[in-house]
Amino acid sequence: MTAARTDDGPDRVVVLAHEKFPDRAKTATGVLKYADYDVVAVLDRDNPGTTARDHRADLPDVPIVASMDDAPDADALLVGIAPIGGGFDESWREDVRTAIERGCDVIAGLHYFLSDDEEFARLAADHGVDLNDVRKPHEDLSVAQGTSADVDADVVLTVGTDCSVGKMTVSLELVEAARERGIDAGFVPTGQTGIMIAGWGNPIDRVVSDFTAGAVEEMILEMGDDYDVLFVEGQGSITHPAYSAVTCGILHGAMADSLVLCHVEGREAIHGYESFDIPPVSEYVDLYESLSAPVHESKVVAGALNTSHLDDADARDAVDAYADELDAPATDLVRFDADEVLDAILED
Amino acid sequence: MTAARTDDGPDRVVVLAHEKFPDRAKTATGVLKYADYDVVAVLDRDNPGTTARDHRADLPDVPIVASMDDAPDADALLVGIAPIGGGFDESWREDVRTAIERGCDVIAGLHYFLSDDEEFARLAADHGVDLNDVRKPHEDLSVAQGTSADVDADVVLTVGTDCSVGKMTVSLELVEAARERGIDAGFVPTGQTGIMIAGWGNPIDRVVSDFTAGAVEEMILEMGDDYDVLFVEGQGSITHPAYSAVTCGILHGAMADSLVLCHVEGREAIHGYESFDIPPVSEYVDLYESLSAPVHESKVVAGALNTSHLDDADARDAVDAYADELDAPATDLVRFDADEVLDAILED
Repeated sequence: MTAARTDDGPDRVVVLAHEKFPDRAKTATGVLKYADYDVVAVLDRDNPGTTARDHRADLPDVPIVASMDDAPDADALLVGIAPIGGGFDESWREDVRTAIERGCDVIAGLHYFLSDDEEFARLAADHGVDLNDVRKPHEDLSVAQGTSADVDADVVLTVGTDCSVGKMTVSLELVEAARERGIDAGFVPTGQTGIMIAGWGNPIDRVVSDFTAGAVEEMILEMGDDYDVLFVEGQGSITHPAYSAVTCGILHGAMADSLVLCHVEGREAIHGYESFDIPPVSEYVDLYESLSAPVHESKVVAGALNTSHLDDADARDAVDAYADELDAPATDLVRFDADEVLDAILED
Repeated sequence: MTAARTDDGPDRVVVLAHEKFPDRAKTATGVLKYADYDVVAVLDRDNPGTTARDHRADLPDVPIVASMDDAPDADALLVGIAPIGGGFDESWREDVRTAIERGCDVIAGLHYFLSDDEEFARLAADHGVDLNDVRKPHEDLSVAQGTSADVDADVVLTVGTDCSVGKMTVSLELVEAARERGIDAGFVPTGQTGIMIAGWGNPIDRVVSDFTAGAVEEMILEMGDDYDVLFVEGQGSITHPAYSAVTCGILHGAMADSLVLCHVEGREAIHGYESFDIPPVSEYVDLYESLSAPVHESKVVAGALNTSHLDDADARDAVDAYADELDAPATDLVRFDADEVLDAILED
């Protein structure tokens, strides 16, 4: 898969999620919830004969089958799980082989590139299908020209207080909410799961550092005249000791009009870097806005709070407190409705 | 060349600069002025029989010879020029071949990797020498751990209002000035020319974006307990539409105690991005300090102004005005002495 957003991307997709569906299959469930294309089956040898909805109420009614042999016609097989370390599990080989032989493209976000696997490369060539390793940046990336703000669409970027606070999910929920209002909203992915869901995109954290902003700009320019609003998936945090470079490159590459600040209720230190405190929310607003300004004026217009560990009453209180701190509308987009936050974004 | 700073690096180096010495040979002249190792000859087929000092008064008295055949004993040949595009000029092949056959390592910062050249790779293997392509990041890079501040040395980072404002030169001048005072000062390179001068280092603008801060941290940890002060070469600018990601990664990866803000007198827009204004100097101070703070408190303690296009009197006035804007000591380190700026750095 390259950055090229093609209209002839897969329509019908089979998602591989053996032995990990649904709770340890984040990519698979993300694709089921948010992808534009039709998922026609999930491969899980532990649960054949059930449907995705049998396992989780927020998932669609897609059949689960034991192997690619049992799957209906499809355009692509998507590997929806990853072992720790991102290797290829040899127990998947037969399904990948069968998919290629049936003429399916294969989409994967593993560290192990399917296109470097001798058998798969040869089979794919024989059958004229693509092996799309979404973690592999395409080779024509370059430096940004500073032109993202020239597109017709309004650009909205999710930014965060930390990694893993829900930036991708918030972006996708906002796309859905906007579309429900009849707005032509597009999603610009920047990480592997987002790319798998979108079916295209640049893996910003894997590109050459000089091309960080440029790889975002390339996507904005490609999408920007075809949509009313683009929701760009943010990465990391501007205060993260390791990942801030990626965050900064996305901020300046996207030249967003509006920012949505994402946070996990109660988190006080950078995840995995516990000696680094998360500053007060108001400092994030100042930092993101003052850092954006020399390249493009961006404003934090709303907040998104992850309250998944709280009950509804506490979640409501937490969201209200977060909105006060931000001095802007806020909600938990997974549990409450998006109206007020979406209004703030669209008004801006 | 990898990040590994080895004590058995080259002592005696021949610098290739055919037909471009000295004015179009920035790497060659940088190595002559600042490198720790001895340059024993410059290769320039246009000027054999002269010395570097014959061409520019600030360069040492190193002989220029026409080819590697005429050069004295050396440990390494360093390619000190680059054609536009960074390709390999075939007119250099005989010199590189001769160097390898004489047992010299070859150091180059070209886009064309010598280690991928079949003849050179084979010859180098035969003669047991290294082909060091400094633009090729080494393969063990990883994410930052947020530990650079733990080293014994004070860390000083040059930051800028734009690209090409003199951050490398300022860092190297400060290293020299500190050493003249008897301070054990080290240089941490982050770009190709700095790496050629230092003889080691990570090319930060070429690493995977997720490893930007980590590649800086790796160097700080390697050097940090062996020096009193480390001067880290900055890159780009935090307001640059294309390169800010690299700047941000270096800022958070270095966890510097002091920052020196570099600027070119009179420059008002980002070079090559003329629609992007350079904000007032005081805004840069706020931006760099507020962005550093959540990871490590850093303070802009001094300024360095490039006044090369002014006469001495105007340069003195410009430096004074810059110091006022910064509310900190400032100078042009190439034309005036470093005392006041160095005092400010060492006091901090």
